[in-house]
Amino acid sequence: MLTYSFADTGSDSLYQHLYKCIKNDILTRNLRAGEKLPSKRSFAKNLGISVITVENAYAQLISEGYLYSIPKKGFFVSDISMLPPGAAFAQNSPVDPQPWSNATDWTTIAHLPNTAELAKMNRQPNAAGLADMTQPSGAADRTDASGPLIDLTSNQTDIQNFPFSIWAKLVREILNENRQELVTNPPCGGVLRLRAAIAKHLKDFRGITVAPEQIVMGAGTEYLYSLLIQLLGFDKTYAVEDPGYRKIARIYEKHKVACRHIPLDESGVCVAALEESGADVLHLSPSHHFPTGLVTPISRRYELLGWAARAADRYLIEDDYDSEFRMTGNPIPAMQSIDLSEKVIYINTFTKTLASTVRISYMILPRHLADRFYKELSFYSCTVSNFEQYTLARFIENGSFEKHLNRMRSYYHRKRDLLIERIRQSKLQPRAVIREENAGLHFILELQTRLSDEEFCARALQKGLRIAALSAFYAHSTPETAHRFIVNYSALPEEQIDKAIQILCEISI
Amino acid sequence: MLTYSFADTGSDSLYQHLYKCIKNDILTRNLRAGEKLPSKRSFAKNLGISVITVENAYAQLISEGYLYSIPKKGFFVSDISMLPPGAAFAQNSPVDPQPWSNATDWTTIAHLPNTAELAKMNRQPNAAGLADMTQPSGAADRTDASGPLIDLTSNQTDIQNFPFSIWAKLVREILNENRQELVTNPPCGGVLRLRAAIAKHLKDFRGITVAPEQIVMGAGTEYLYSLLIQLLGFDKTYAVEDPGYRKIARIYEKHKVACRHIPLDESGVCVAALEESGADVLHLSPSHHFPTGLVTPISRRYELLGWAARAADRYLIEDDYDSEFRMTGNPIPAMQSIDLSEKVIYINTFTKTLASTVRISYMILPRHLADRFYKELSFYSCTVSNFEQYTLARFIENGSFEKHLNRMRSYYHRKRDLLIERIRQSKLQPRAVIREENAGLHFILELQTRLSDEEFCARALQKGLRIAALSAFYAHSTPETAHRFIVNYSALPEEQIDKAIQILCEISI
Repeated sequence: MLTYSFADTGSDSLYQHLYKCIKNDILTRNLRAGEKLPSKRSFAKNLGISVITVENAYAQLISEGYLYSIPKKGFFVSDISMLPPGAAFAQNSPVDPQPWSNATDWTTIAHLPNTAELAKMNRQPNAAGLADMTQPSGAADRTDASGPLIDLTSNQTDIQNFPFSIWAKLVREILNENRQELVTNPPCGGVLRLRAAIAKHLKDFRGITVAPEQIVMGAGTEYLYSLLIQLLGFDKTYAVEDPGYRKIARIYEKHKVACRHIPLDESGVCVAALEESGADVLHLSPSHHFPTGLVTPISRRYELLGWAARAADRYLIEDDYDSEFRMTGNPIPAMQSIDLSEKVIYINTFTKTLASTVRISYMILPRHLADRFYKELSFYSCTVSNFEQYTLARFIENGSFEKHLNRMRSYYHRKRDLLIERIRQSKLQPRAVIREENAGLHFILELQTRLSDEEFCARALQKGLRIAALSAFYAHSTPETAHRFIVNYSALPEEQIDKAIQILCEISI
Repeated sequence: MLTYSFADTGSDSLYQHLYKCIKNDILTRNLRAGEKLPSKRSFAKNLGISVITVENAYAQLISEGYLYSIPKKGFFVSDISMLPPGAAFAQNSPVDPQPWSNATDWTTIAHLPNTAELAKMNRQPNAAGLADMTQPSGAADRTDASGPLIDLTSNQTDIQNFPFSIWAKLVREILNENRQELVTNPPCGGVLRLRAAIAKHLKDFRGITVAPEQIVMGAGTEYLYSLLIQLLGFDKTYAVEDPGYRKIARIYEKHKVACRHIPLDESGVCVAALEESGADVLHLSPSHHFPTGLVTPISRRYELLGWAARAADRYLIEDDYDSEFRMTGNPIPAMQSIDLSEKVIYINTFTKTLASTVRISYMILPRHLADRFYKELSFYSCTVSNFEQYTLARFIENGSFEKHLNRMRSYYHRKRDLLIERIRQSKLQPRAVIREENAGLHFILELQTRLSDEEFCARALQKGLRIAALSAFYAHSTPETAHRFIVNYSALPEEQIDKAIQILCEISI
């Protein structure tokens, strides 16, 4: 039987060590596509570790696409054949876009559902698709709801979760000790101390190795998208996920650049459709797709890297917006960390982890793009105020950010569990299916209802509940995408949970 | 003799009251073009006020273009004939672009020189014009200067001038008292409380009446320019001043929109050249042109408003970047405040008045453009962090901003006087002419030297002094623009003044 030594696990937990051993064997082809892995129980016994440890490692590998499971048969190694032996990514090698044949099974352990039917596309225009459900929250008070509005579309953070005391302490320190730095113009990419702190954080917690100079700070990801269009070219064709976070397409549209909507299948962006679209640059959120919650498996990630490598001007913009809040296992490794061809531009934000009103985001540019950025766009001043850059740098450096993330992860975990439990105890239970609840801060609630999505959401709003339908995020939706609603619980106060469920019951019955 | 009552001056000083009385008489045609005003001495005697008061009022009216002076003859009313009686601006009325015939004289009292020869244009391409002298200050440490670099191009603020104590106090208050607001997403235009505070400030100190909703906050004016391109259209033709602040042209260039360089004459942007250029939108800084220091007189302002009024899609972007620091008399009234046709977009920033590293700017949109902004671009999140918006709101509300401005004005005044005095006492004196020293935070130093501007600046940098030549800011410069250097003294420590002058002496002799 497959066996590994646990003599030197370094700082890794047992589960992380096992996860890395198996992953390494898959990447080096010691374990081959289709090969069956030991059952959890016998593997645990053989290695002298607990079943839970094996289960966690398997779950992580499944969620990343290295393994798949067939119920009652066991766990198998996925086909990652476009990845050459030795895990090196073959630059410009012709890649055969090979659909991952066992995709319908890979989610079993991680409780990630089969989303193939969600993503099947037809080309009927969809009126609801034009609506931007992520309205600026300032509009919230303009609804006709009586009583306080319950908002399941908001990305705002709970007041109780912002670390006010430690933040106030750090601001005080900065204003006392760093006066000269505070009034000194930083480089266009931002304060180097902050970028160094972020680089270290990314190395420690996300497996991303990057020079601080490759990091560019900006006042929100929306601003960074505008910079990227200027860097990559107004003449390029940009592609977004369909369904997807509609703001991205709006930004491209407002900049008058060509934008294509690429359908998803059960593994994420369809490479064939992408190839056909003529796109140069693809925006995607492989670690946690919005709104479906899909996690793009490793095989598809390599396919997409292969697509990018086939032409000089192709790039992937990896939006990693809430990877810190994955509920099960480790965060999914970033595409940036497996990109050997300088094709991935990584974007992340502190608006999700700190507060939506703290406008600090960053992007990591591949080295050649960083060079071009400094050459062509360094006349721009950094858009983030020095005061907040230095405060955040200290916050990361002294470990507060890590502590805050851990606290928030438990908080969201608890809230998610409570919400799901209340739904299961409610009258909704027989008519509700919960999907994609493990990645990030929203899940999908499928409800049996005779109402159209538009009518459902309108009635909910009348009763004081703002909720968005999945179908509204498709440029082209289908009947299969109906009756699925996005439950963004990050800003939902616990005391509103019962009322929210009650409203959903009243409408759907 | 002309006479006015000083019985009810309200909160105005005597000089302000007199200024307003004369201006009103010119606007209402009680005083006609070419009419001679009383001499300062006899007018003062007649009105029972001091000669200084009359002198100040005349100087202000001259700098705004309502009066002109002819040395040894006296003071005369300017021809503002394109302005219909009653000061109402005739919308869409055909405007005869009429050069202000006495322009060469209007600057005498205010010690503003005749800049006609500066602005005479030819079309020879100028290599130096491609350089952006306002390099990001991060580049400062990359020069080959030994010892600390003396920087006469920097827009940084002195550390001693930022109001650290009061700012720290306000941040503390905000973090204690406004927690809910701090984590609540503001409208796309920014925190309303801040916009209301700015509106009040503009009314009290700048004569601008505006609804808070017309104000849009952004993380620096550069970002606002990008928003404006999206609002006004990528298909429009934009025009910038030549010479001018080169960053603006760079932003248009990077957004791939058409951009024309419009020559200046002694009153500012040439309306005939503007008309000929086919431009739709003109960027200008009428209160204090960079780099020449020119103040656009009222007659030209109305001509430009007339140009804008002649087509529906034409707009003026009025960049009022350092009007708070005018050294003589009141700030020049903004074009925004005389615009009755909704043609002026007003932009200003706190990066000049607070610190270049505090990224808070704003624009005032005419009502119909504000409506369009909310309709088309409200999906964007405000780029300024709530923490800084609320802190700044308090800073303005409690009078600290006004106090700070007064303190800074005296500080800059003192520094400017000291610098000019030291130049006059130095060996530079016989070969130096100082120009445009009354408006804003830089002046022009004309030096007799046989070196080319490029060589002069290069040698200065070798000796540890960064200085920019006026010619570098022309898209097309002429021999007449040579040997004029921009002295931006806002960031110059007083202890560096003598060393700076010494270097200039060594090079130019």
